[in-house]
Amino acid sequence: MTKKPLLLALDFGGTKHAAALLRPGEREWLARTRRASPPHPNAESDRAIVLQLARELLDAHPGELAAVGVSFGGPVDAPRGVVRLSHHVPGWEDFPLRDHLQSALGAPVSVDNDANAGALGEWRFGAGQGRDSLLYITVSTGVGGGWVIDGRPYRGADGMAGEIGHTVVRPSDPRQCVCGRYGCVEILACGPAIAWEARRRLTAEPGAGPGIRELAHDDPSQITAETVSRAAQAGDALASEVLLDAANALGTGIGNALTLMNPDRVVLGGGVTKSGEPYWAEVRRAARANTLPEISADIVPAALGDDAVLWGAIALAEAVLQRPSSRSRP
Amino acid sequence: MTKKPLLLALDFGGTKHAAALLRPGEREWLARTRRASPPHPNAESDRAIVLQLARELLDAHPGELAAVGVSFGGPVDAPRGVVRLSHHVPGWEDFPLRDHLQSALGAPVSVDNDANAGALGEWRFGAGQGRDSLLYITVSTGVGGGWVIDGRPYRGADGMAGEIGHTVVRPSDPRQCVCGRYGCVEILACGPAIAWEARRRLTAEPGAGPGIRELAHDDPSQITAETVSRAAQAGDALASEVLLDAANALGTGIGNALTLMNPDRVVLGGGVTKSGEPYWAEVRRAARANTLPEISADIVPAALGDDAVLWGAIALAEAVLQRPSSRSRP
Repeated sequence: MTKKPLLLALDFGGTKHAAALLRPGEREWLARTRRASPPHPNAESDRAIVLQLARELLDAHPGELAAVGVSFGGPVDAPRGVVRLSHHVPGWEDFPLRDHLQSALGAPVSVDNDANAGALGEWRFGAGQGRDSLLYITVSTGVGGGWVIDGRPYRGADGMAGEIGHTVVRPSDPRQCVCGRYGCVEILACGPAIAWEARRRLTAEPGAGPGIRELAHDDPSQITAETVSRAAQAGDALASEVLLDAANALGTGIGNALTLMNPDRVVLGGGVTKSGEPYWAEVRRAARANTLPEISADIVPAALGDDAVLWGAIALAEAVLQRPSSRSRP
Repeated sequence: MTKKPLLLALDFGGTKHAAALLRPGEREWLARTRRASPPHPNAESDRAIVLQLARELLDAHPGELAAVGVSFGGPVDAPRGVVRLSHHVPGWEDFPLRDHLQSALGAPVSVDNDANAGALGEWRFGAGQGRDSLLYITVSTGVGGGWVIDGRPYRGADGMAGEIGHTVVRPSDPRQCVCGRYGCVEILACGPAIAWEARRRLTAEPGAGPGIRELAHDDPSQITAETVSRAAQAGDALASEVLLDAANALGTGIGNALTLMNPDRVVLGGGVTKSGEPYWAEVRRAARANTLPEISADIVPAALGDDAVLWGAIALAEAVLQRPSSRSRP
């Protein structure tokens, strides 16, 4: 009995992890599974959980594991397969994740950060298929980004390319990001920023925002970006203003990115981008207004949703198989 | 007698044109020449001048013309070799410059815009040698830029990549660029912007800027960016403030470009960048302050000066020779 080849995709997230199996060439997962992190995760518990997910899948679906692709939620030295650190989970500093997983799983492994994996996933299997160049942006608890250029992930000299979240669009804005800058895209456009601004305005304007107050049961601490988005879609004026201001900041940053790089397409994913048509219209309007008329501004929703990073991990695994060094030779 | 092979570099500038001959593999021009445009140039007179320069060189140095590279001072559809237009000279709209020169010169031709040619020249022969990725910026009457990524010119979906001059760094600034935006890098940092701001301040502050007034013979209309630069280097406080503010705007734009693309190196050319050490220190300080600590900010002067575009044209000619379709086959 010959074993069927398998590709394994692994996702080390900030609060949850996932694994999925694919037969090469197919477009439907053979199997997938996910698990939340424990309350106080560390690097060791993360690794144990992900390896357990991988083994559950591989035990249930015997076959030859041809290659493994890994998305990691933090900075990675992708060519060396080494995690630099996690901003959320202690113990990851300079961890050789590729070598660790190659030993544990007995197959070649390729590792990249989640923004690059998302970009690659959307380019290979999602909204960026067939495009020469792609900027992928994910807007959720932060604003991350990744590039595909000439059909390859472009990581930059220090593996940091794509950090559109920390480009500055409103230097006079009083909001300061953890990155140290005032008015970068992330501090104006990420989910927590939207919630923070809504809380600030509700405190400053006692009569305003009845819709959002009702959704939050008059408890400002309950307000999330999703609350603001839902209130805006239900017609609350304050919520709309806050949401569209965040869309404007994101669109302005995209406009600068278009001017500098003129990519074929921009793909937006992440929870905040599910905020409805007025949000999208303002992102597109601000991007168009902030770039040159000769530059196309093709900005579309991610097609793969939260699965973009797993599909990107598959693309990483495929790339491992195509490297001459990992082919078995006679 | 066998003819020796030659590469021809042509530069269509806004106000002057140049041509140069090189033997493949050498690093010194065999011959070069340049000529100013007539007072009211048009596309036809430009082409006649450049072809005349080319023929003078080729007549004086007989040999087999192997390939021609062309730098054009305006937007170009490089893959098709078609000039889109010139912002300075009428009659260039949609002109097939590659085919025209191939017919006239009997050799394969490659055309690109001057910013891309400068980037390629510095990457292949100048300050960017050996770098994986390079952002080249030229600061003179405008602020242009070009990318080399993975050892190739990166032009973007519409051939517009690199337009760092029109990325916005101070959206609240009252200065509006011809591009329509307020506070883009060009309107704050190009040569005319420096002269304009110095004139504005000298008018508003009657006692200030004695050094710059003296250099301009008390005639504000005589002030150029070079006047401001010379006055600043001679210790004039107003001139220094104006110059360093321009440096700050440029550095801030570079910081955003570093955050987004994390290139190996940034190379700065153009007359304004010859403004001395305090100018360079402020460009570097502002870039460093406006990007993430993990991102390297290696910003160096162009090594080839105004010749960068001619050397870039040579790199374009070399690339033509390496294309399978342009090799003669048995």
